[in-house]
Amino acid sequence: MLKTVVAFAALALASTATQAKPTLRADVDTWRATHERQVLEEFEALLKLPDVATNVPDIEANARVLVPMLEKRGLKARLLSAGPNTPPAIYAEMTVPGAKRTVVYYAHYDGQPVTPSQWRSAPFTPTMRDGLSGKDVDWRAASGPLNPEWRLFARSAGDDKASIIALLSALDALKASGRKPSVNVKVFLDGEEEQGSPHLEAILKANRDLLKSDLWVIGDGPVHQSRRWELFFGARGVTGVEMTIYGPARALHSGHYGNWAPNPAVMAAELVASMRDSDGRILVTGYSDHVRPISPAERAALDALPDVESDLKQELQLGRSEGSERLSDSLMRPALNVRGISVGKTGEEAANAVPTEAHVSIDLRLVPDLTPEEAQGKIEGFLKAKGWTVVHDAPDASTRMTSPRLVRLQWEAGYPALRTDMALPASKALIASVERANGGPVVVMPMLGGSVPMYLFADIFKTPVVGLPIANHDDNQHASNENLRLQNLWDGIDEYAAVLADFRW
Amino acid sequence: MLKTVVAFAALALASTATQAKPTLRADVDTWRATHERQVLEEFEALLKLPDVATNVPDIEANARVLVPMLEKRGLKARLLSAGPNTPPAIYAEMTVPGAKRTVVYYAHYDGQPVTPSQWRSAPFTPTMRDGLSGKDVDWRAASGPLNPEWRLFARSAGDDKASIIALLSALDALKASGRKPSVNVKVFLDGEEEQGSPHLEAILKANRDLLKSDLWVIGDGPVHQSRRWELFFGARGVTGVEMTIYGPARALHSGHYGNWAPNPAVMAAELVASMRDSDGRILVTGYSDHVRPISPAERAALDALPDVESDLKQELQLGRSEGSERLSDSLMRPALNVRGISVGKTGEEAANAVPTEAHVSIDLRLVPDLTPEEAQGKIEGFLKAKGWTVVHDAPDASTRMTSPRLVRLQWEAGYPALRTDMALPASKALIASVERANGGPVVVMPMLGGSVPMYLFADIFKTPVVGLPIANHDDNQHASNENLRLQNLWDGIDEYAAVLADFRW
Repeated sequence: MLKTVVAFAALALASTATQAKPTLRADVDTWRATHERQVLEEFEALLKLPDVATNVPDIEANARVLVPMLEKRGLKARLLSAGPNTPPAIYAEMTVPGAKRTVVYYAHYDGQPVTPSQWRSAPFTPTMRDGLSGKDVDWRAASGPLNPEWRLFARSAGDDKASIIALLSALDALKASGRKPSVNVKVFLDGEEEQGSPHLEAILKANRDLLKSDLWVIGDGPVHQSRRWELFFGARGVTGVEMTIYGPARALHSGHYGNWAPNPAVMAAELVASMRDSDGRILVTGYSDHVRPISPAERAALDALPDVESDLKQELQLGRSEGSERLSDSLMRPALNVRGISVGKTGEEAANAVPTEAHVSIDLRLVPDLTPEEAQGKIEGFLKAKGWTVVHDAPDASTRMTSPRLVRLQWEAGYPALRTDMALPASKALIASVERANGGPVVVMPMLGGSVPMYLFADIFKTPVVGLPIANHDDNQHASNENLRLQNLWDGIDEYAAVLADFRW
Repeated sequence: MLKTVVAFAALALASTATQAKPTLRADVDTWRATHERQVLEEFEALLKLPDVATNVPDIEANARVLVPMLEKRGLKARLLSAGPNTPPAIYAEMTVPGAKRTVVYYAHYDGQPVTPSQWRSAPFTPTMRDGLSGKDVDWRAASGPLNPEWRLFARSAGDDKASIIALLSALDALKASGRKPSVNVKVFLDGEEEQGSPHLEAILKANRDLLKSDLWVIGDGPVHQSRRWELFFGARGVTGVEMTIYGPARALHSGHYGNWAPNPAVMAAELVASMRDSDGRILVTGYSDHVRPISPAERAALDALPDVESDLKQELQLGRSEGSERLSDSLMRPALNVRGISVGKTGEEAANAVPTEAHVSIDLRLVPDLTPEEAQGKIEGFLKAKGWTVVHDAPDASTRMTSPRLVRLQWEAGYPALRTDMALPASKALIASVERANGGPVVVMPMLGGSVPMYLFADIFKTPVVGLPIANHDDNQHASNENLRLQNLWDGIDEYAAVLADFRW
């Protein structure tokens, strides 16, 4: 058995060195050119399914569609659950004779919450347009190759169902050209990533043997703003908090009480302004005490990144950026983002009153080695030092009357950041595979600004974890009018075909 | 004719000195005790009419009900309009043989905007309850005198339709006891006060002769928190502004851009915190340059006010007040109240995104001699000095890209404050009339914290203007669940009867 394996491996290596690389890319592109509509039909079927993970039946409906899609490609698929009324993960596998390495391909099939009124078309009615602000196009009626600048608009189009479709399509393309993967394939699809993956750890630990591998490849996140292919070797962690700040027990006439009854809108403004400045610097005492410095290799990777700032400022109509760093450098720091402030009313509905409560919603992006627990503790300590009474449940009248400044903090589940060593053999092999398919260098990011629970795979499996994103950076992920640019989907199929069939170390 | 007039006047004065005072109060109370339900029927009929002045047809429907109510009391009534599609004012008059003074009684019949979801019962479905947080009661089915602690809930119940019903009922009570007013009566009902009375000045100036008088009595505002009867000799002015603060042109993933793209929620927080502190002090440079000092007489009146602060803190569940002054002293200063902040989303709808725009809604309470124009100019100058680009229309892309901090200001119509001299003969006669009906001293406020366009009457007619409020302080005016406590309505009928029939100088 051992000899046979070695012989297979030697043959495969020889093939890689001489002819597989150009042929693979060409074959995949040929297959894709004749199957664009078939790929989009499957993509639309998936995007039509509402997928906000707070609604577990919606997630289960997605799983019922995804399992047969995986089985159609010859993978054995099943659900992994952390218990009743929790969003299931989907597991699938394909053992490849002769493959000596096993790779787990990760993506998530849930999406961010939606505010339908802010969308041009309904978030779960996939709609093709000829550009980011373009007009609707009927791609089914179009003749010839589809314009690769067209975009499909729907929640999760970019984040993260595109990666699933690219993986499935790559398997189709390999089969059509008579190829088999060069690694044993495991697929893990998270059903609650946009909610902070509260059950992921339990699922991974309960399936430790099943998920054993040599590498996790994370198919999530957008590619670089230059539209160049990208790999990322880590991701920021995340947590979040809903803050409620209390004013008078009932709304008051602003004329008769407006200089005397504490205004929760003003207290919310002071609280936010005390926590961070408009250059993005976090002012919470000791917040960066355990932030791991950037290594020389990471520094070099960052410095090699193309410039994007001036184009981005134009695209986003920005008169400045927060701070003077490059975008990629700023993402190496912890971030405190205010997702929203809701207090009283504005515009037509505004009344001359002192409001009763202010709501501030914040997400925190974490970097190694600042954990969610440390971030939460530092913020609570900071607020207490600033004179705030911090509670976690709705306060009673007595607490309100004895607290000059009262805030309720409701913390979300979160997870820490990760940066994988770029010098590992698996890391180098992955870069080489993707660069062969690309025919040249790709963008290598030490750490993604967004959050993927990469830390957990490294922590539980002691296995390297690397990210392979495919979505366009301007896909409006986490916002209204999320979309995927078709060329990014085509690129994704090429990349997945490479890391399935031209990947060895 | 002159002799006859003098004889009538002499007779009236004699009557006042000997028996009218105690008899008047007793007669009015007797009439009221047997007509409580009739008063409430008329009050409910008025409160059922939606009255937000942005909807002119609603205001016109109110006028169609009010005009016959006035005519029923023997007044000649008509509408005064500033033009098509503007809320009309209502004018009515009754000339009293022998009366040497003419008094205009002012109230407004429009109400603040409503957010029905925040009301226990629909805002235009008057509902009686047995207390502020009490249970519904069927007052029509109740036997005997109605409990004076019951409250009628509806928009405008306290602000300001109660004053209109008290005036009408006082006229009924006088007629029932065979009395005539001691002054010529003019009634002026504003139809757009809660919108800042944008057409009031034009209406007053166009009807300068019609509205000539010796005194304006303003029936608006709540009485003192001690529930003692009150007169006020001025009111703060008001203006307001809607601010829009601009972030990126589209919402962005907070992980991939959250430390780099300027966050408009944070900019809004910084802007608010720069303009005022949590003690209510306005930090805008030079804002108080023209604030008129409190006179010794006003200081004495303020010092004579009963203490309300500790009861109020309990009632409102406050852990502190803004600043260390008494409530009444704090209302002598200009106020900057944040009515609301809306940016991004909070709670279940929150997404991990950098929002595109922040909206901040502010109302400004003004004191003599700080005018709306000066306040607006000082704020715009202050923001510019802080690095903000200030625009008044929606900015184009070029303005956004060349402005590190960009805010759009949309100013509301407003008006300045007024303080009437408390030592004038008319002022003294009014205090004496109300104190006779009360049987003792009343609260005398140099200036109301809320806003009534008193300045305009003084400015146009060169006539003293004094306020006679009747609503309970805890009437939730300008907020949800606005209400009027019945005893305040009964008191109001006594007070109006006094200043109609026992009022001479």
